[in-house]
Amino acid sequence: MAGNKFFNRNIISIRDFTVDDFTYLFDLTDKIQTLSSSERGEIAKGLILGYVFYEYSTRTRLSFESAMASIGGRSLGISDIDSSSIMKGESYADTVKTISLYSDVVLIRHPSDGSSRYASEISDKPVINGGSGSEEHPTQAMLDIYTIFKEKKKINGLTVGIIGDLKYGRTVYSLIYALSLYDVNIHLVSPATLKIRNESIYDISNKVKMFNHTELTDDLLKKLDVIYVTRIQKERFPDLQEYKKIQGLYTIDESILKRSKSDVSILHPLPRVDEISTSIDNTMNAVYFKQASYGKELRAALLSALLHEEPF
Amino acid sequence: MAGNKFFNRNIISIRDFTVDDFTYLFDLTDKIQTLSSSERGEIAKGLILGYVFYEYSTRTRLSFESAMASIGGRSLGISDIDSSSIMKGESYADTVKTISLYSDVVLIRHPSDGSSRYASEISDKPVINGGSGSEEHPTQAMLDIYTIFKEKKKINGLTVGIIGDLKYGRTVYSLIYALSLYDVNIHLVSPATLKIRNESIYDISNKVKMFNHTELTDDLLKKLDVIYVTRIQKERFPDLQEYKKIQGLYTIDESILKRSKSDVSILHPLPRVDEISTSIDNTMNAVYFKQASYGKELRAALLSALLHEEPF
Amino acid sequence: MAGNKFFNRNIISIRDFTVDDFTYLFDLTDKIQTLSSSERGEIAKGLILGYVFYEYSTRTRLSFESAMASIGGRSLGISDIDSSSIMKGESYADTVKTISLYSDVVLIRHPSDGSSRYASEISDKPVINGGSGSEEHPTQAMLDIYTIFKEKKKINGLTVGIIGDLKYGRTVYSLIYALSLYDVNIHLVSPATLKIRNESIYDISNKVKMFNHTELTDDLLKKLDVIYVTRIQKERFPDLQEYKKIQGLYTIDESILKRSKSDVSILHPLPRVDEISTSIDNTMNAVYFKQASYGKELRAALLSALLHEEPF
Repeated sequence: MAGNKFFNRNIISIRDFTVDDFTYLFDLTDKIQTLSSSERGEIAKGLILGYVFYEYSTRTRLSFESAMASIGGRSLGISDIDSSSIMKGESYADTVKTISLYSDVVLIRHPSDGSSRYASEISDKPVINGGSGSEEHPTQAMLDIYTIFKEKKKINGLTVGIIGDLKYGRTVYSLIYALSLYDVNIHLVSPATLKIRNESIYDISNKVKMFNHTELTDDLLKKLDVIYVTRIQKERFPDLQEYKKIQGLYTIDESILKRSKSDVSILHPLPRVDEISTSIDNTMNAVYFKQASYGKELRAALLSALLHEEPF
Repeated sequence: MAGNKFFNRNIISIRDFTVDDFTYLFDLTDKIQTLSSSERGEIAKGLILGYVFYEYSTRTRLSFESAMASIGGRSLGISDIDSSSIMKGESYADTVKTISLYSDVVLIRHPSDGSSRYASEISDKPVINGGSGSEEHPTQAMLDIYTIFKEKKKINGLTVGIIGDLKYGRTVYSLIYALSLYDVNIHLVSPATLKIRNESIYDISNKVKMFNHTELTDDLLKKLDVIYVTRIQKERFPDLQEYKKIQGLYTIDESILKRSKSDVSILHPLPRVDEISTSIDNTMNAVYFKQASYGKELRAALLSALLHEEPF
Repeated sequence: MAGNKFFNRNIISIRDFTVDDFTYLFDLTDKIQTLSSSERGEIAKGLILGYVFYEYSTRTRLSFESAMASIGGRSLGISDIDSSSIMKGESYADTVKTISLYSDVVLIRHPSDGSSRYASEISDKPVINGGSGSEEHPTQAMLDIYTIFKEKKKINGLTVGIIGDLKYGRTVYSLIYALSLYDVNIHLVSPATLKIRNESIYDISNKVKMFNHTELTDDLLKKLDVIYVTRIQKERFPDLQEYKKIQGLYTIDESILKRSKSDVSILHPLPRVDEISTSIDNTMNAVYFKQASYGKELRAALLSALLHEEPF
């Protein structure tokens, strides 16, 4: 597809992208799904996705691996940080450098802010941020926006609720940044202890209409076109009691659905624990599995665009 | 090959299959071995086997991975249950659902009976049972029967001895069910504490001639066309002393071979520990490594048939 | 390329090869880099590299995996020795035999001398020694020589310094054997406690000019065309204090470079810890990352030659 601005590009922060970029990527994602598996399997023949995971993330790793496999490429790297060369005292820079020598595109997951940007300065190959620090998970945000677009046929004009752990969830920040490129209303719903960190989004606070809540009131539910639910991550809490108190407070279930717009779309980055009742899985509103499926397709399109000037 | 009844089908229980199914699959297995590696490498181009292993099984996983790789496809999934999303509290259903979204066929290994059947209700893609509960390992049974057929050129009329741990070995139950579709005599040989669980095979007990033994007598050895040996699994025994007492009692060695039919075929699902002496590895009777090799071929044929209406 | 003497051959010891073998392999390595990724991706379509790692080695495993992937093949095997069938008491011979049944070429890493030679007697497929015992790492030595050749356009006539842990580093012994096929001067520089084991190289001690040193003097530095630095492996030392004393003594940095030939080439098998200062990474003298990159290319060429009489 012509006009590829992703070729050989680093995917570091959602802040580096424009609506035009998204539109191009979404069109490419639509188009790649029209190819046969055999046609797709030619795109990345002989090409390699190298990954380094300094945090466990089965979900992100498998989504990228399946995306790469579906276009005929292979994935290899380090995901078990304990048994790798990292143990032998190798520096982050050397690990990234070496993986980049073995591969054609590099995927990194790391707990520190700035780790991917730094990697992109070391690597000869384009770097994808597969989640870093407290704020960045750009490909997750892209697929979230894509999912909303597929469901609603638009982004502008929508009212989006984001619910759960807004303090520690890095996907939330990337999503808010992505949404800030459009004309949307955002309602943030969380317990007081898990409120969004305002200092992290100060630079877009006057670009997008954001409202804070601590409860999912009927009034609010009636407004929402999209409810984006995030996992309340047990591993973020030093105290299990604190976790248990909060867990379940914002569970999306049939009673919530009944009080919402009939066509509300429920998204979740997965894995879920108790944030969404399985009783709504088979409703038209439940979009989270479709969202995971789009993750494979969008990442396959993205990888194709990074690897080839003419993606396919 | 025409007449494919495996296309898009779940492989859950050996009880779901007929002699005709086996015959089709065996013919396909013969045929796939006549293709060049380059021809085979086109069959599953761009297609993915997704796996979830809730029990360790290097052998089954590698056999399927090599089968999938040999037809040009890729495998990905979760085999280290401790480091996966499972840890984060995700349900079995969600894990299966997600893996099915990332792949074209799903392989599951799970300690519980019924886990694969349940998975097949959740997954949009065909599910293969890679071993579940105490009884089911259907693809192992298929390759066992295929191996016997390749050695003996028939199944009907054979006398088969099954030896070792008949209580805990799930491959034994699947094999007995598969054999019950043919006209065979089955001799079960085990220590009293490891006897077959009769309640698990009651429904075929009048379809097949089965005889119980606690010793490998000369009389018995003279009758057997096939000796199927199973590993006495240390990890099944709470008491190591008990294990050591039993281990070695049924070892197949040169002395056993001397007292057996000259063309007896020795099978074993592998890995073996001391059940078969390495001194007979190079005899014509030792078929267990050929059996492992057939495992790759039969699974490659099976995957091709699941993935394509016209397998190749 | 005609004249392939690697087809179906075991790569066990660097001592099994001649200068002609190296020349053929180096030419093939040059040639494979001229192919497009799509052309390369056809070479090993449907073919499998099976590996068994009895020692952790992320570096060697990833280098081979990327090499195999770049020629369109796949890699599978056992690298986490704790979670594999090995735990179930399977013998080394059975594990090697089974991996060989699942694959087209077998890669083995093992702590014992002779382990790869033994494997090659068991396996039906060619075996590659990915590092064994205290002395052998033949493909590392091949890529070391290739790297020197690419930098210096010759091997004969060079003066090579090998620095660091010469007692425990297996790459050192393989490299010395490879260099002994050429007309070179070798200077060995190490602390007294980490001196080369003379009994391990006695058979070439009169074939090659070797000199022992404990210090990197200015006189010596002025002579060296190549400095090969090895990691001082912490895990080899029972006493951390001892390690710390020695670590850093032979660090290659700007001050060393200044006192060396202006075109000296610095090599290192990686991963490095503190043996080479990062401050020289961007100099023309730093060749270690190029060396890692050549590792992928040379192994891709080698695998192609093992798998096909006409490699590509």
